[in-house]
Amino acid sequence: MPTPTRPDLLLPAEPGQRALARELYALAAELPIISPHGHVDPALLADDQPFPDPSRLLIVPDHYVTRMLLSQGVPPADLGVPSRDGSPVETDGRRIWRRFADNWHLFRGTPSRLWLEQTFTDVFGVDTPLSPATADTVYDAVAAKLAEPDFRPRALFERFGIEVLATTESPLDDLSRHAKLAADGWGGPGGRVVTTFRPDDVVDMEFDGWPTNVDRLGEITGEDTGTYAGYLAALRSRRAAFIAAGATSSDHGHPTARTLDLGDTAATVYDRARRGRAEPGDAEAFRAHMLLEFARMSLDDGLVMQLHPGAVRNHNRWLHARHGRDVGGDIPQATEYVHALAPLLDAYGNDPRLTVVLYTLDEYTFTRELAPLAGGYAALRLGAPWWFLDSPEVLRRFREAVTETAGFYNTAGFVDDTRAFCSIPVRHDVARRIDAGFLARLVAEHRLPMDEAAETIVDLAYRLPKTVFKFGERS
Amino acid sequence: MPTPTRPDLLLPAEPGQRALARELYALAAELPIISPHGHVDPALLADDQPFPDPSRLLIVPDHYVTRMLLSQGVPPADLGVPSRDGSPVETDGRRIWRRFADNWHLFRGTPSRLWLEQTFTDVFGVDTPLSPATADTVYDAVAAKLAEPDFRPRALFERFGIEVLATTESPLDDLSRHAKLAADGWGGPGGRVVTTFRPDDVVDMEFDGWPTNVDRLGEITGEDTGTYAGYLAALRSRRAAFIAAGATSSDHGHPTARTLDLGDTAATVYDRARRGRAEPGDAEAFRAHMLLEFARMSLDDGLVMQLHPGAVRNHNRWLHARHGRDVGGDIPQATEYVHALAPLLDAYGNDPRLTVVLYTLDEYTFTRELAPLAGGYAALRLGAPWWFLDSPEVLRRFREAVTETAGFYNTAGFVDDTRAFCSIPVRHDVARRIDAGFLARLVAEHRLPMDEAAETIVDLAYRLPKTVFKFGERS
Amino acid sequence: MPTPTRPDLLLPAEPGQRALARELYALAAELPIISPHGHVDPALLADDQPFPDPSRLLIVPDHYVTRMLLSQGVPPADLGVPSRDGSPVETDGRRIWRRFADNWHLFRGTPSRLWLEQTFTDVFGVDTPLSPATADTVYDAVAAKLAEPDFRPRALFERFGIEVLATTESPLDDLSRHAKLAADGWGGPGGRVVTTFRPDDVVDMEFDGWPTNVDRLGEITGEDTGTYAGYLAALRSRRAAFIAAGATSSDHGHPTARTLDLGDTAATVYDRARRGRAEPGDAEAFRAHMLLEFARMSLDDGLVMQLHPGAVRNHNRWLHARHGRDVGGDIPQATEYVHALAPLLDAYGNDPRLTVVLYTLDEYTFTRELAPLAGGYAALRLGAPWWFLDSPEVLRRFREAVTETAGFYNTAGFVDDTRAFCSIPVRHDVARRIDAGFLARLVAEHRLPMDEAAETIVDLAYRLPKTVFKFGERS
Repeated sequence: MPTPTRPDLLLPAEPGQRALARELYALAAELPIISPHGHVDPALLADDQPFPDPSRLLIVPDHYVTRMLLSQGVPPADLGVPSRDGSPVETDGRRIWRRFADNWHLFRGTPSRLWLEQTFTDVFGVDTPLSPATADTVYDAVAAKLAEPDFRPRALFERFGIEVLATTESPLDDLSRHAKLAADGWGGPGGRVVTTFRPDDVVDMEFDGWPTNVDRLGEITGEDTGTYAGYLAALRSRRAAFIAAGATSSDHGHPTARTLDLGDTAATVYDRARRGRAEPGDAEAFRAHMLLEFARMSLDDGLVMQLHPGAVRNHNRWLHARHGRDVGGDIPQATEYVHALAPLLDAYGNDPRLTVVLYTLDEYTFTRELAPLAGGYAALRLGAPWWFLDSPEVLRRFREAVTETAGFYNTAGFVDDTRAFCSIPVRHDVARRIDAGFLARLVAEHRLPMDEAAETIVDLAYRLPKTVFKFGERS
Repeated sequence: MPTPTRPDLLLPAEPGQRALARELYALAAELPIISPHGHVDPALLADDQPFPDPSRLLIVPDHYVTRMLLSQGVPPADLGVPSRDGSPVETDGRRIWRRFADNWHLFRGTPSRLWLEQTFTDVFGVDTPLSPATADTVYDAVAAKLAEPDFRPRALFERFGIEVLATTESPLDDLSRHAKLAADGWGGPGGRVVTTFRPDDVVDMEFDGWPTNVDRLGEITGEDTGTYAGYLAALRSRRAAFIAAGATSSDHGHPTARTLDLGDTAATVYDRARRGRAEPGDAEAFRAHMLLEFARMSLDDGLVMQLHPGAVRNHNRWLHARHGRDVGGDIPQATEYVHALAPLLDAYGNDPRLTVVLYTLDEYTFTRELAPLAGGYAALRLGAPWWFLDSPEVLRRFREAVTETAGFYNTAGFVDDTRAFCSIPVRHDVARRIDAGFLARLVAEHRLPMDEAAETIVDLAYRLPKTVFKFGERS
Repeated sequence: MPTPTRPDLLLPAEPGQRALARELYALAAELPIISPHGHVDPALLADDQPFPDPSRLLIVPDHYVTRMLLSQGVPPADLGVPSRDGSPVETDGRRIWRRFADNWHLFRGTPSRLWLEQTFTDVFGVDTPLSPATADTVYDAVAAKLAEPDFRPRALFERFGIEVLATTESPLDDLSRHAKLAADGWGGPGGRVVTTFRPDDVVDMEFDGWPTNVDRLGEITGEDTGTYAGYLAALRSRRAAFIAAGATSSDHGHPTARTLDLGDTAATVYDRARRGRAEPGDAEAFRAHMLLEFARMSLDDGLVMQLHPGAVRNHNRWLHARHGRDVGGDIPQATEYVHALAPLLDAYGNDPRLTVVLYTLDEYTFTRELAPLAGGYAALRLGAPWWFLDSPEVLRRFREAVTETAGFYNTAGFVDDTRAFCSIPVRHDVARRIDAGFLARLVAEHRLPMDEAAETIVDLAYRLPKTVFKFGERS
């Protein structure tokens, strides 16, 4: 990576703390990136084709960007976001880019601005500040770089210093891209690119096409998903296949954090749903129950469980109707953990063989629920602030809120959670800078000696995520 | 206004940031005041009579002050707060003032202290610090100023640099004060003093005297409010009258943020209530439904909708029994927005013709609900922190919390929300100082260049509220 | 106390504020300690025996420490936490200490680390920093001190500068330790060690052994607790005995903040429960009702009521099954105050004869509920942040959140709430440092003049808790 253009970016303004933070940040700045949770398309790295134009790379798929423009009246279709019904959307990358640049002021003070600016300068070496007047200049400069071989995905992966990147796939995925990566020496157990087992589409009865999905799960595995026993066997089979493709964790995105042990009733509920006769509450109960089943499977196969509850999917129904899922229409909701997780914790919360990484979209649980839980159960670790919360101010508030009760070592390290491959280094860099600033304050306030702060920043940036997500066995 | 006595008031203490904040604040300090939401009595400016004595001006009507004294055992009657039953209360302004001064220490660290101090010094030029010992000196000095012509309401309005001030009236108000103001060249569309359409007393079936109020609404408009259709017609008629008196927005203070489209059932619910046979839940459902009706009316007539939910009115029942409404007995409650607003947002949330300004008394929704909603729907803007939250610390936390997801440009600018005319300039000044400090930190942390911060502070202080509240057409 | 080893500990890092904070802290540093709420065993001071070994003093009984180690897979049995069934646990103090020292890094950034470090240095004069390598050195040095007469409980009490310490006892306690203390000139009304009336085990029908407890209450008092009237009489009788043993307050730890006036139904509910026929909801309703009864008793006998709701007791069921109550297995839950307290506040909220000190485990009520309530009712005061929240960051956020609406003078001063006698001075010291830092910021931002900040820091550290908890009559 080139020398950062803003060496003191995000470090505390007070000169004494800034000096300490600089020293701490320097220890973490060049460490390899561990990216245990994200949504990069594995085809990108499997195929290693050049990226498309700047807008298709940086604007169209970034729902942080398109939702902000929607919030000020710019329709996603004008930004090239594909429509569900195939009705026409803007296709000219340069016009999309100009619309974006015209609204660049909307992003003042947002992480999107930081991520994009640092991507321009540090990834693409484009130092012209973006503005309506410079839209074309920046577009052309980025486009020129994208044509160079050094800007193909695998070359960038090397340049970014990524040690391991986990993508996220459904059990229905054939993992062919990961097979290609393994064949090229990039994937498989201990590889540089691994998968994550994300079974929501076969677990959540309210997911579009659940019955068909479960049928396909049966076909793929040769198990009879007409029965609950066969369904569990099919899931176990896919977990084994994912582990063979390098997976070290599963990932569960539920509306709530509820867990439940349905016991023998689980089969009854499953049967009802398979016959199209699910009763009210069945979907929620079954999701909750399956978290216990997956915990049991993890005791056997060692996959780390990631729970990220609390999103109301497709809250913006107009947006969903026109442009589908994952385009910026989800909204967080209040999330309760203390009672919701009790069944899971009663069963396995004190078992050190299990690791559950808890995420949240609701920062108003940090000191009341998340830190006391993670600081009191052997199985729990706190995931980094997620989604709307993976921003400098919240990363800082996260440390200020959870450290006192859970310490640093019950947290799991930063996750970038991104589809935007080019933003991976800057996102991790932001987290390292914020952690350096927080530790610098502890040192400045005589709460921690510098040598321990120095050890801690390296743990947070590198050792902790590697250990928690079980990438430690690798060389 | 005189030179402020504390030029660095509220600016960040760290010298580097303070220097930046000073520079930014200087750009906003002298800008005209846009006051789109407040409760100044329009008779004040229509009649332009001298203010009464200092206690009747600054203590008796300020429920922030009287509730704090009540919290330490000083009964509101001893402070001259009028009683409902006419039982005697303190009438001697000087004795009220002394009681207040004796308890001045209670206000350390509160915005009331700041507002009052700056009012003494910057409005009245009284530099003697208030204390039990100086009570009479300060009282006499303020009283002397109040007798001068320069301290009449219109003269102060000019001195304060107010460009536009919106008062708040019920549809039952005859708007005669606004007519007087218009006749004097002060009111009417595009005028300096305008009204706001606040229909709670004819919408909320639980409001004291709702049936009578709805009858009067019919009389005033000549519509038959015996029917739901007539009721809607009457409301439309009053909205037109309010717009003719300069209104650019409506204002809705509900216990919750719930919205609902009752469809044809609305007429049934209305009829039931008119016959005195409202069922449990009718009032809440009808309030919720009427927000959709008002949104529809806004699509036609252009009024900006302000929603400020979450107050439990008259929580202090003893206080309400003795002294009535709006004397400090209301308490906030937890407020849910994500599900509550869904019906309104499903209907009109992406329609850029509609503007809904959302306020809150519950800061624990900032990052979880309000910022994601405002950053994802074209119709939504975030109002400034309201009531108990219109304080330096919360204004700062508001920016720290919502900017990363909603940006600056989905916020609506500061509103003073005050009955206390003399405190208007200091309240806006506090907000400008806090915004300057927040922007200075972004600059100091290399997150925003100074030229963009400079543009932003002017937008926040002046351009945004003018645009959002549609005062932009004025000269 | 020896000169602190870190004079600027926890003071703001910015030099200007630090200088102001130092000045303010110096005014509070040497003030006597008022400890109105805690869980020190009175036998400690009654018997004045030497403390046991360092692990039994500092590790085994400190559930902050043992839960953190459990959270990383170290079982409490390995740390010597007694088992319920008598199964063997570690008994070797030195081995416990080594396990603890091996995990010392877990406590970075936690208050436990601060409290322990300051206890080592300032109480025991041991300056060797703890680490796995120095475990034995520190252990031996502390152990050597514990053998000296100067390190007996009463000598430390004197050295710590404690003016008054309240312990907490059940109505079933015979108060013999307090009688011994009184006989030695240490206890009784106005004494240095007093008790607190904590009736949860005879009020909460869900408490283990409630029927037996209520029987015993009858035996102790000679009242017939077979009837509700006799039950109330017995409680009044014990309150009188507690007052005779110096108590100035009662203490109520309920799952929720709910209050209720059951009226005549109370006797019915009580009778049902006594006959073993309690109905669902009876326990919660009766707890809620008894808060009104205790408020009524307080109007008569003057005891200050402390409410600390919001803990889910024994959430970690595995831990409870093996090691019992109060060993780190409790978790906070969301707590509602505004509606829950309404019945109590309707009855007595404006009565200045009553003082209710409200605590919380849920900081996400600070600005929405607690500050508006305490700033608007004469009977309410806000207790210091409690339990997981009695940490530097939350103490600071508490002042930042509640001061603007409730001021300083509706707060009740710091409470250490601790079983760990040796940590009392450092806990109070931390609170004084944080308050000094907060006040220094107000001064630096020109929000409060230095002379008033100086008065305030003394009030917060000393005068307020003494007044609120009615220790004011003492010399």
